Amino acid sequence: MSFQNPVFIPGPTNMPEVLRKAIDMPTLDHRSPLFAEILHPALEGVRKVLKTETAKVFIFPASGTGGWETALTNTLSPGDKVLAARNGMFSQRWIDMCRRHGLEVEVVEARWGEGIPAARYEEILTADKGHSIKAVLATHNETATGVRSDIAAVRRAMDRAKHPALLFVDGVSSIASMDFRMDEWGVDIAVTGSQKGFMLPAGLAILGFSGKAMRAGEMAALPRTFFDIRDMEKSYAANGYPYTPAVGLMNGLKLSTQMLLSEGLDNVFARHHRIAEGVRRAVDAWGLKLCAISPDLFSDTVSAIRTPDGFNATDVVSHAAKKYGVAFGTGLGEVAGKVFRIGHLGSLTDVLTLSGIATAEMVMADLGLPIRLGSGVAAAQDYYRNESKSKKAAA
Amino acid sequence: MSFQNPVFIPGPTNMPEVLRKAIDMPTLDHRSPLFAEILHPALEGVRKVLKTETAKVFIFPASGTGGWETALTNTLSPGDKVLAARNGMFSQRWIDMCRRHGLEVEVVEARWGEGIPAARYEEILTADKGHSIKAVLATHNETATGVRSDIAAVRRAMDRAKHPALLFVDGVSSIASMDFRMDEWGVDIAVTGSQKGFMLPAGLAILGFSGKAMRAGEMAALPRTFFDIRDMEKSYAANGYPYTPAVGLMNGLKLSTQMLLSEGLDNVFARHHRIAEGVRRAVDAWGLKLCAISPDLFSDTVSAIRTPDGFNATDVVSHAAKKYGVAFGTGLGEVAGKVFRIGHLGSLTDVLTLSGIATAEMVMADLGLPIRLGSGVAAAQDYYRNESKSKKAAA
Amino acid sequence: MSFQNPVFIPGPTNMPEVLRKAIDMPTLDHRSPLFAEILHPALEGVRKVLKTETAKVFIFPASGTGGWETALTNTLSPGDKVLAARNGMFSQRWIDMCRRHGLEVEVVEARWGEGIPAARYEEILTADKGHSIKAVLATHNETATGVRSDIAAVRRAMDRAKHPALLFVDGVSSIASMDFRMDEWGVDIAVTGSQKGFMLPAGLAILGFSGKAMRAGEMAALPRTFFDIRDMEKSYAANGYPYTPAVGLMNGLKLSTQMLLSEGLDNVFARHHRIAEGVRRAVDAWGLKLCAISPDLFSDTVSAIRTPDGFNATDVVSHAAKKYGVAFGTGLGEVAGKVFRIGHLGSLTDVLTLSGIATAEMVMADLGLPIRLGSGVAAAQDYYRNESKSKKAAA
Amino acid sequence: MSFQNPVFIPGPTNMPEVLRKAIDMPTLDHRSPLFAEILHPALEGVRKVLKTETAKVFIFPASGTGGWETALTNTLSPGDKVLAARNGMFSQRWIDMCRRHGLEVEVVEARWGEGIPAARYEEILTADKGHSIKAVLATHNETATGVRSDIAAVRRAMDRAKHPALLFVDGVSSIASMDFRMDEWGVDIAVTGSQKGFMLPAGLAILGFSGKAMRAGEMAALPRTFFDIRDMEKSYAANGYPYTPAVGLMNGLKLSTQMLLSEGLDNVFARHHRIAEGVRRAVDAWGLKLCAISPDLFSDTVSAIRTPDGFNATDVVSHAAKKYGVAFGTGLGEVAGKVFRIGHLGSLTDVLTLSGIATAEMVMADLGLPIRLGSGVAAAQDYYRNESKSKKAAA
Repeated sequence: MSFQNPVFIPGPTNMPEVLRKAIDMPTLDHRSPLFAEILHPALEGVRKVLKTETAKVFIFPASGTGGWETALTNTLSPGDKVLAARNGMFSQRWIDMCRRHGLEVEVVEARWGEGIPAARYEEILTADKGHSIKAVLATHNETATGVRSDIAAVRRAMDRAKHPALLFVDGVSSIASMDFRMDEWGVDIAVTGSQKGFMLPAGLAILGFSGKAMRAGEMAALPRTFFDIRDMEKSYAANGYPYTPAVGLMNGLKLSTQMLLSEGLDNVFARHHRIAEGVRRAVDAWGLKLCAISPDLFSDTVSAIRTPDGFNATDVVSHAAKKYGVAFGTGLGEVAGKVFRIGHLGSLTDVLTLSGIATAEMVMADLGLPIRLGSGVAAAQDYYRNESKSKKAAA
Repeated sequence: MSFQNPVFIPGPTNMPEVLRKAIDMPTLDHRSPLFAEILHPALEGVRKVLKTETAKVFIFPASGTGGWETALTNTLSPGDKVLAARNGMFSQRWIDMCRRHGLEVEVVEARWGEGIPAARYEEILTADKGHSIKAVLATHNETATGVRSDIAAVRRAMDRAKHPALLFVDGVSSIASMDFRMDEWGVDIAVTGSQKGFMLPAGLAILGFSGKAMRAGEMAALPRTFFDIRDMEKSYAANGYPYTPAVGLMNGLKLSTQMLLSEGLDNVFARHHRIAEGVRRAVDAWGLKLCAISPDLFSDTVSAIRTPDGFNATDVVSHAAKKYGVAFGTGLGEVAGKVFRIGHLGSLTDVLTLSGIATAEMVMADLGLPIRLGSGVAAAQDYYRNESKSKKAAA
Repeated sequence: MSFQNPVFIPGPTNMPEVLRKAIDMPTLDHRSPLFAEILHPALEGVRKVLKTETAKVFIFPASGTGGWETALTNTLSPGDKVLAARNGMFSQRWIDMCRRHGLEVEVVEARWGEGIPAARYEEILTADKGHSIKAVLATHNETATGVRSDIAAVRRAMDRAKHPALLFVDGVSSIASMDFRMDEWGVDIAVTGSQKGFMLPAGLAILGFSGKAMRAGEMAALPRTFFDIRDMEKSYAANGYPYTPAVGLMNGLKLSTQMLLSEGLDNVFARHHRIAEGVRRAVDAWGLKLCAISPDLFSDTVSAIRTPDGFNATDVVSHAAKKYGVAFGTGLGEVAGKVFRIGHLGSLTDVLTLSGIATAEMVMADLGLPIRLGSGVAAAQDYYRNESKSKKAAA
Repeated sequence: MSFQNPVFIPGPTNMPEVLRKAIDMPTLDHRSPLFAEILHPALEGVRKVLKTETAKVFIFPASGTGGWETALTNTLSPGDKVLAARNGMFSQRWIDMCRRHGLEVEVVEARWGEGIPAARYEEILTADKGHSIKAVLATHNETATGVRSDIAAVRRAMDRAKHPALLFVDGVSSIASMDFRMDEWGVDIAVTGSQKGFMLPAGLAILGFSGKAMRAGEMAALPRTFFDIRDMEKSYAANGYPYTPAVGLMNGLKLSTQMLLSEGLDNVFARHHRIAEGVRRAVDAWGLKLCAISPDLFSDTVSAIRTPDGFNATDVVSHAAKKYGVAFGTGLGEVAGKVFRIGHLGSLTDVLTLSGIATAEMVMADLGLPIRLGSGVAAAQDYYRNESKSKKAAA
């Protein structure tokens, strides 16, 4: 018999009932005025979650990868140069995409577990007197390593270098879960998806474009149709969509942003921090280390946990799935086999998180790691019960 | 923001997705042949779960209480005498119902936490030479105290007394979760509901009537219409229902019995036992005692946990709900304030159960009880991981 | 492949999406404060729909039949006398129930198709100088014949006879669809169910009790437990329920009353009248007659349509189901084979009603009745398009 | 109050309950083996629906437009030449996309309402001795005009010209509703979406690639990442996906293909033909003409209906939505204001189609067109009742 445990993957997240019901709509004519009542509140809600007053929001029926492609193809031309750091699987994939689209990439290598080296960005940008670099790429939260980089520092580096490049930020696994300030940080394109902080199924690429990014589009020569933001812009103005939209998902996004804003973004971020910190206390109690090399880099949406040398971390994930019906994340790329990941974003409670921690303990014990059962749980319990003084966790 | 933790009340239980979807049907004409395709498999599925070859099954749009009333009014007449033990809130309510329907009740008092005193039953029945006692009432699982009584022993007592009374068993919180053998134990009426082992919402009273119980109905003078099994019997034979049925719930029941039988009843019972035993290991690790006075009485569907003198056990329940968004059960009647209850029946996994145990620990610690965080969790983890050698828990 | 046509039975009705979603809740602890947030708004919403300031509302997990039993057993004693008219299957069933509960019934026979003969009631009540009649029963809308009786006239008859009997009204297929004025008409007990005007699945018996009916309960000697309103009253006061409630359905009822009251009861009634009148125009265009013998009796929730002599009206229903996948209602009791019924209550639009009318035409043509295809549809279209000047039908 | 009428737009279609429930899944780890149990049956089901033994199937989280882009970017290089006919809005959009991707398009103009001029294709291909044309584009069903073109004739034209170009077919509004024979017709790329014949929400682009098309991809220089079929191919082989898949929609697609294949494709096509023919009978009874200029071109998924000169056909759509809550399709591009469209594909019954026809009649009468109410309905009824001899419509 199959019963449903929560998932502990770094997205898609567990979904609240109300969002599932908002998505599961009967068919609605997307060319009728009813669609406008979904489209505009969804766009407006995303805008507020991005903390921007002026950016234009675009929603595509695609994934976060499609969102990246939207960013590149709507602003750049073949042969254009971009600056990017490689500190994990998702930043690596973005670099790969740039190359497949004929862009030149200046890659800054970083250890997997480190953040974006803003100082190195500054050097390179300062040296780029001719402003051949058109865009700076930054992965806000490296889902593969559980590392949150400092986007404000990247912006400061660009400003100190007085460099006019655009700043593109992959916020797929940070936006709506951790603080993100599009305007304050001078982000030109923010990219995210429906299946992380918005607690929806995969299926929407969500982007914000600054005025500067919109203007860059006028010159962009990379071919695009499906991902063309100008078609979107024109259609939105007429309460429509350039092709058939994913109406149910957009209705879910409308409600999701209402829920997030009504809880208050600061409360949402605090909730993610509290839940994440409980996981980290457990990891510490187990005597293990995170992949992220220092506390300022710890992600509040996913923890990548290093296992001892000689142990295959991927076994944790397959054993947990097979024996306990619980999904964790494997290590990817360079850290494959070295880490397993606990996703702790989206729709989750302290209480459910404890079940994930408890499962990880059983799994590691089953696999022969010297973990004392209950040790991580106790550390997390101690933290949660002191942090949840009021009814935060319950509501 | 409200996210959904599992409930740990002794019913209604957590519900599997597939059952919720089976219930949530569009309207179907209950006078059409489509209804027969729901009715008969549901009746037949229940029959198998009751482990009876010959009993007639009846399904009413009501609750377990309605099921009890069905048992009484279809077999007895005003002034008839019944024998009943009072060892908890639910047996007490049944006694109360008998009296409200003008029956005379010979009550055997038992301590709350004890099972049905079969020996005392035997004495009384043996003494009842004139067979004035028409029915013997037995609560299989006292939901209030977490006590499972021995129905086979009650039957043996009746047989040894050579007494022809009917045997009515309240299996509301046992059937479909713990072994129940209608034919083997000579049960004349079995009563249960949809919201426990069947993992459905409340709304169906489910009964099995032996041939002897059916025959008793011919003389029964207690008034009844809504709960008349003869109307049901006649209607079922014509693929119909005497009034408007709860079609969706019955469709859920059809699927629920298919799931239970396909898992195998023995596996279902073993799963409940394993999950329950983990809870009991935790209780033991906490240094607390169950309300049930001896291991042979321990219920596999609900544990009533005694808290220290001077402590109000009800605070556990209200604090857990308010601070952690988790529902436990309070003590009822004589054990109000003395116990809190953890329900562990229906749709539940080892993993989710650990979150309930972990929550109880935090709550008790918050309220000042000398509980070591993680201690109960560790005891349960140790048990679960050794008992779930294969993919039992996961599937 | 099975696709879903709307049903045209006189209940359960087609259900709005939002109500289905409100019912399909995850398990909630019915002993927690969360339940009060469902219970009280549901009770209060029903009170407003009944148009009463003072009556107490009770909601049982049962059907309308259970509602009738609640009315009888909470106010009467064995041997009490009641006055009732028999003008259809449902009034006949109520009479039958009275007798099975040991009540004496003074039956006023009426032709099936007529309303309650208020003048005859007046004669009998006037003649009952000793006030041996304790309750007057009235079926507001005879679902079997499509006849709406005049409850105000029944009240006037009682008043003119200066008779103190209680007035019980079966409003199962009228309340929430046609005007019902509990206080103004002096109704002592109003009985209805969830599956008609409230547009929910079957599973709730819904009652209003006047102060006088509540007082009568103090003397009522008919046995009852499941249907005891005093247990309900006590539990409601403590934000609880005497046994496990059907929480999801009650949540649906809460939302249903909000929808009805927000649309405005007068608009709800007008909508039902408009849709019903379209069906009647179609019947007229077909050259057929309703079972109801005069326009003042025409029900706005169901039309029973007489077919020519020698034709088995039940064939319409089975043929429609088999060939077209559409459910109509058969004739019951005395009018079995003589009428078929089109239910037009609850969640329905002009547009969907036309599909039912069109189907009936095809069916009758298939079965050899001299019906001109499109004739009834045209009559209904003509009516609907003129009555739906604004966006009434759409919304 | 808002109740749900069926939609009569040419997609997204009305959705069967079971598909909505299959989509509405709790979160599943798409990197676990559970995903393979969805992915492979969905791919295999699509393959059978496309009637191909050898093509590779790809499913993208996108729309039909994304499907077109997939076809172009995976096979062609900038400057490549393609041949395309413009006979409606969707063929025009495809031409536009080609140009935006730097392809040269040889456009064959056709009147909107005509099919693809295969003879003209043959002339052009025959003249293209140097085989500079790399691909021939064909819109199987022009959704804007309700015209189904003859793809076999296009193939014959190519064969007679002995031209090696690839054949790309837009089957968005034909596949799974009208006969489509990928292998027999020598189609190299078939493009469709989830929201038409598959009866799902929008959100999936679905493609079949012949071996020849796969090989063409090795040389294709158009940039692509999100839509790269080689990434898909590699991931599928490892039971995975190159990025986060739309798991719920794919689960719906798996079930949808099972439903279609279990009904039998020929039965599915016959059902669409029957429903469409009923609509055409109605149009004829109204004295109106279809946009499609001859019966061999009539689409079985959508009918574009010409209104009299001087009448704005778009008013039909807005009036129907506002007054009756029913969605029809407007005319697009060159036929804007000249036609309105009735979509009759996907999940629909004869009975529901009659409600659409009846609504169109009321709307046209409201707007002053000389339509006799019931005339179109009668024509369709007459057809349906004779074509639905058995229980075809019901099931």
